[in-house]
Amino acid sequence: MNSLLIVGSVAFDQIETPFGKTGKIIGGAGTYISLASAVFKTEKLLVSVVGDDFPSDYLQILKHKNINIDGLKILNGEKTFFWAGKYLENMNHRETITTELNSLAKFDPILPDSYKNPDVVMLGNLTPVIQRKVIEQLENRPKLIVLDTMNFWMDTMLDELHKTLKLVDIITINDDEARQLSGEYYIVKAAHKIIEMGPKYIIIKKGEHGALLFSRDEMFYSPALPLDDVIDPTGAGDSFAGGFCGYLAQTDDFSFENIKNAIVVASAVASFNVQKFGTDGLLTLSKNALRRRLFKFRNLVSYNLDENIF
Amino acid sequence: MNSLLIVGSVAFDQIETPFGKTGKIIGGAGTYISLASAVFKTEKLLVSVVGDDFPSDYLQILKHKNINIDGLKILNGEKTFFWAGKYLENMNHRETITTELNSLAKFDPILPDSYKNPDVVMLGNLTPVIQRKVIEQLENRPKLIVLDTMNFWMDTMLDELHKTLKLVDIITINDDEARQLSGEYYIVKAAHKIIEMGPKYIIIKKGEHGALLFSRDEMFYSPALPLDDVIDPTGAGDSFAGGFCGYLAQTDDFSFENIKNAIVVASAVASFNVQKFGTDGLLTLSKNALRRRLFKFRNLVSYNLDENIF
Repeated sequence: MNSLLIVGSVAFDQIETPFGKTGKIIGGAGTYISLASAVFKTEKLLVSVVGDDFPSDYLQILKHKNINIDGLKILNGEKTFFWAGKYLENMNHRETITTELNSLAKFDPILPDSYKNPDVVMLGNLTPVIQRKVIEQLENRPKLIVLDTMNFWMDTMLDELHKTLKLVDIITINDDEARQLSGEYYIVKAAHKIIEMGPKYIIIKKGEHGALLFSRDEMFYSPALPLDDVIDPTGAGDSFAGGFCGYLAQTDDFSFENIKNAIVVASAVASFNVQKFGTDGLLTLSKNALRRRLFKFRNLVSYNLDENIF
Repeated sequence: MNSLLIVGSVAFDQIETPFGKTGKIIGGAGTYISLASAVFKTEKLLVSVVGDDFPSDYLQILKHKNINIDGLKILNGEKTFFWAGKYLENMNHRETITTELNSLAKFDPILPDSYKNPDVVMLGNLTPVIQRKVIEQLENRPKLIVLDTMNFWMDTMLDELHKTLKLVDIITINDDEARQLSGEYYIVKAAHKIIEMGPKYIIIKKGEHGALLFSRDEMFYSPALPLDDVIDPTGAGDSFAGGFCGYLAQTDDFSFENIKNAIVVASAVASFNVQKFGTDGLLTLSKNALRRRLFKFRNLVSYNLDENIF
């Protein structure tokens, strides 16, 4: 069984959407990625940090989902990273109300020995320095390293990001970030320029408009399933990443053809996440439900055109 | 051979994009729809109006493309509809600089007798009153009536639009317009509510993000092909409509399955249109080029996932 190393924040979130408001709930990229990969046959190794205010019940939930938390450091005398945000009417934009880095500011990822030979690595959105520090502790080159990042690191640590990009196989960013990182407006040009920076593949996430995958020579598009019950978009990108890496770790096939499949699976996993608040959509996700939804994805794009009538 | 009745403006456009500026060139929904359907085996019947300033050379171009212009009225003493617009940096937004309705303000579509039994009708974006007046002159119910409309008619003539909607099979609008017409934010809910208003199917155009098709029970998504040479988006929606109706008229199959194919073909035709200024992309479109591009569309969404591994 392949192992999947996951690096990312474990946090408290407080979320307001047009559909309601949560109290402090569990969140963070590391949490969403881990839970999204839980449905797949792979050993899940989480590296993260929390404060001593983090409830042991939540740790039990992660353990119960077969997520190894030996790499989850609890910092005494520190509080857990906290983010509060509010989604505006159309759910495409959100306001950050509070960000308290707390323990995350002191995050120094030290891998337990049992974590140092993963088959797949998912670097959640963190500083590119921390992401690189994780890669440098590995004893062997993994079969696949996937990196998520965001405009903030392009604004503040672009050189560090470029150094880390040279070490990874796949980068996932959104379309605006692809434009920013490449300096190109057209997505095809932007993707090709970013591939020159190191990654073999780039996944461009377009939210409700789906996701695009590019290699140097090929291109693939997976739509998002149109849903009429999007409740909370928090963690959609991280759920996508978790489903993506979980599927690839399970299938142990890292060809472009199977990466295409992984993007469809990732989109399906993310679609469950946005239908409930916080991580509830992932916590209740079953293999049966995922399989049924994957058939909906297939139906969504299947057609029977005879191109040769022209 | 099926006949396709096309109603829409024939106009002068003057277009500015980040890539250049045209002089007065031929444009208008009726022009784009007609030229986009020219590659298909169908009898094309154009109903429109121009002023006496309209160059006979342009009429020859339409005739040369086998478009019947017996229904194109030339109003003496009037000028042709003129629109000037400018696309902003990202091409997703445009400013209208000038709109001179001219002859279009007096458009009273009188169908020649030879136009009164079309198999397919494409009602380009015009007042819903004119669209209905065309339908009322038909001697038999066509196999398919497709209507394009826009927010302006929802703002100013909503009751008339509702009356016309009851008479058509398919409506094409963009996502914001679907939300406005239905009062629903979520696209799935919006689509179903609009289907209650009369059309059996709704096509929601999302520009660079593709197009969605809904029936009461089914849903289909066709992406737009990511292009790195979008020069001029003018007429993209009308080219889509022309390709859509042209394909359906040629194949004479109006099932949901074949409407899915039509949307892919329509997206492909529209992709050629945006790669050149004005109608140049359509004037030079060949069947071979269209077939090759359709294979690109198929590659873009094809994958080989085994859903049953879950």
